[in-house]
Order: sequence, then C-alpha cells, then structure tokens
Amino acid sequence: MEGRATASTPAALPYYVAFSQLLGLTLVAMTGAWLGLYRGGIAWESDLQFNVHPLCMAIGLIFLQGDALLVYRVFRNEAKRTTKVLHGLLHVFALIIALVGLVAVFDYHRKKGYADLYSLHSWCGILVFVLYFVQWLVGFSFFLFPGASFSLRSRYRASHVFFGATIFLLSVGTALLGLKEALLFKLGRAKYSLFEPEGVLANVLGLLLACFGGVVLYILTRPDWKRPSQAEEQALSMDFKTLTEGDSPSSQ
Amino acid sequence: MEGRATASTPAALPYYVAFSQLLGLTLVAMTGAWLGLYRGGIAWESDLQFNVHPLCMAIGLIFLQGDALLVYRVFRNEAKRTTKVLHGLLHVFALIIALVGLVAVFDYHRKKGYADLYSLHSWCGILVFVLYFVQWLVGFSFFLFPGASFSLRSRYRASHVFFGATIFLLSVGTALLGLKEALLFKLGRAKYSLFEPEGVLANVLGLLLACFGGVVLYILTRPDWKRPSQAEEQALSMDFKTLTEGDSPSSQ
Repeated sequence: MEGRATASTPAALPYYVAFSQLLGLTLVAMTGAWLGLYRGGIAWESDLQFNVHPLCMAIGLIFLQGDALLVYRVFRNEAKRTTKVLHGLLHVFALIIALVGLVAVFDYHRKKGYADLYSLHSWCGILVFVLYFVQWLVGFSFFLFPGASFSLRSRYRASHVFFGATIFLLSVGTALLGLKEALLFKLGRAKYSLFEPEGVLANVLGLLLACFGGVVLYILTRPDWKRPSQAEEQALSMDFKTLTEGDSPSSQ
Repeated sequence: MEGRATASTPAALPYYVAFSQLLGLTLVAMTGAWLGLYRGGIAWESDLQFNVHPLCMAIGLIFLQGDALLVYRVFRNEAKRTTKVLHGLLHVFALIIALVGLVAVFDYHRKKGYADLYSLHSWCGILVFVLYFVQWLVGFSFFLFPGASFSLRSRYRASHVFFGATIFLLSVGTALLGLKEALLFKLGRAKYSLFEPEGVLANVLGLLLACFGGVVLYILTRPDWKRPSQAEEQALSMDFKTLTEGDSPSSQ
C-alpha cells in the first residue's frame, strides 16, 4: 500500500488538470488574438470598448469559473477551509471580471444607440450572471459564513455542485452564442461561407470553448477523483450520521 | 417501511420527469410553430427543404436523445434487459431522424449552391453526429451484443454515461448555435434588435432548449434517483467483486 498523500492523488488526474489549463489558457490567448488581429484590439474609450466584453467573459466566466470548480480536485490534500476560501475567491475574481465585461457592452450599446437585451445571447448571458451571483451568495452563506449548521451544509452541498456545473455549462453555451453573433454581425453568410480566416479562427475558438467545458466536466464528475474526506471531516460526518440517522436524503 | 416497488421510486422523480416531457414536447411544438409561422412550413422539394433540418434535429437529437437518457430513471423496476433495449431503440430512432435532418440540409445546400461545413454550428453538428454514432456502436457492442464480459461492461459503464451526457449537452449547444444562425441569416442585427416577433419566439425556444438540457441533466445526475440494482444484478455484482477485488477502479 502506498503512502496517504500519494494514494489520494489519482495517477491520471494531474495530466487531465494540465490539459484543462492548456485548453483554458489557449482559449483566452486565442480570444485576445482574434480581437487583436481582426477587431482592432482593446480600449475602454472608442469603438474598441465592445472588445473588452468577449475578453473579460473568456477570462472570468469561462477560464476562472472553470478553475474555481476544479479547486477541490487539485488541492485535495489541503485543509478544507483553505480550499473553500480559494474556491470562493476565484469565483469573486470571475464575477468582478465578468461585471467589467458586462458594463463594457452596455456602455458601448448606450454610446452607439444600439438596443439592449434583444438577442438569445444576451438573455442567456443575463440569466448566467444572475444565477452565478445568487449561487455565490447562497454558497457563501452556507459554506463560509459561520452560522450554517453542518446538517444544513450537508443537505445543500449536492444542489450547490449541480447548479455550479450547470451555470458553468450555460456560460460556455452563452459564449458560443456570443462568438457566433459577433461573427455573423460582421461577416454575414456571404463572407463566413468563404472560409474567411477570421471565421475559421473563431470556429476553432468555439471548439476550444466546448472542449474546455467537456474536460472540466469530466474532471469534476469522475467519481474516483472526488476529494477524499480528511480525518477530522470524517469524524464530524460520523457524528452527524449518528445524530441524524433516518433523516438523510438516501433514506427517502 | 413501504413495499419495494414504491420505495424504489422517489416521490419527486415523476414530477421532474413529467416536467421534462412538458418542456421537450413544448420545444418540439414551438420549433414546428416557428417553421410554420415564419418560414413557410416544411416540404422535401423546394426551398422549404431546409426546414426539415431544424425540426428533425429538435425531435431526434434533442427530445428523443434526452428521453433515451432518462429511460433508466423512468423504468427503474423493469428487467434491466428490457430497459436496455428501449434505451438502444430510442437512440436508433433519434439517429435515423437526425440522419434525415442531415441529408435535408446537405441536399438543400447542394441545390442552392451554398458552401457546406463552414460555420461553427456545422462543425459542432458533425462532431455531435459522429460521436453519437460511435457511442451507439460502442454501447451496442458492450451492452447488447452478447460477447462482452461482465467485467468489461462494468469498466466501460461510467465512460458511456459521461460521454452520453456530454454528447447530449453538445447537441443542445449545437441546436442553440443553429437557431441563432437561422435567425441572423434572415433578420440581421437591424430587425433582430427591434424585438421582431420571430426573434422573441426563437429566443424563448432557445431558453426552452437550455432548460430541457438542464432538467434532463438534473434527473440523470441526482445520486438518489439512480436506478437501483435488481436482486439478480446484485448477486452477479457480488460475484464480480469477489473475483476481481483489488482490480476495481476505486482501488487505484
């Protein structure tokens, strides 16, 4: 039998995590390259303000959100509280960066006199942002705020994980819709169907977004890669089980 | 303690399944309404051939594929083999209907002289179709073809479930991209941003697609809603466990 630290880090996990980071960094870099090469770069004043939106969303709501979900798989042998704080902090950074991206596009629309919130991308985007903010608030109150009981936390955990993964996947879907919208507004069917370099690059970026979503989901859902309970958590969990036997969801 | 059949059907599951069916049927009906009201209806010959594509995909790769995934949750007390055959059959129907939808769009493009496979929607669509076909073939060889051993089936099961859910989610994402593409090709930014009725209807359809995906995923992943092993499967599983102890994935 191997030692505890080695035994609790599955052999293939680091490779999958490294692959997810490679995909995530490549998609952020490729978003930057797309905006730099074909959209004139980024600035807050001028027409380039729109470009702040896709870059912030790629960094915040895709890369950082995905990484925040992976924290419990990567830092599996750290104290639970440290991992929890890191998970919450990464989500805060993601939320702030996404907020900058949101302000950029509303401000740009206002300056240009464009309508707001008419497209499927914008509807999904607002939905993602509201759900993400609510999930963060509820997560904070249950898991970081000292008031919530062990029993409450335990009941809410499964919903938190499901909604977290769902909001992340909806973010990826919304990003795909936004990318498609930005392409079609500029190229139209005529140019897009000629395999213009910008169209091909954006299609590859779209596939990268989908792959990043898939790999994060795989790491997150593989049962034998879940974070093992630490000794003190196991003890608490046993106490809890003894106290609430017959009241657990599985006994329904 | 209640009787076995009642105890093994969780109280809330039928309501969630009914809700998923309501969403699924509404999204198919709304796709039909969209094509009928704003796209002139459906026919194989003439310009209306394109419209066969979204309708077939909504029925096959969204509704039927989603329902095929739910079969093990709905028919939880039937013999495993019956449920398995139904799961495989629903996927075959979905695949055939999707193939008709695929032929329709390629045939339409050929007649109109349009380029093929230039858009992100088409790239994702081909990926979904190939993955779906391969998943079906591999699933059939492992689970329905009599040759595969219990041990092989057991090892492949988790991957089959993960890839099944992922392909379904990618299908939903691809449908959203296709909907957006069909809208922007016709309306452009100018009309879309005026909240034209077709745009609003298509946005609602998009949200329905995303919700159907979310509800199916919820039913599929809720741990206490998983299909309970039947008595004979449990016996086999125990034999298998005794035979292969130390070789199971969780002992890595």
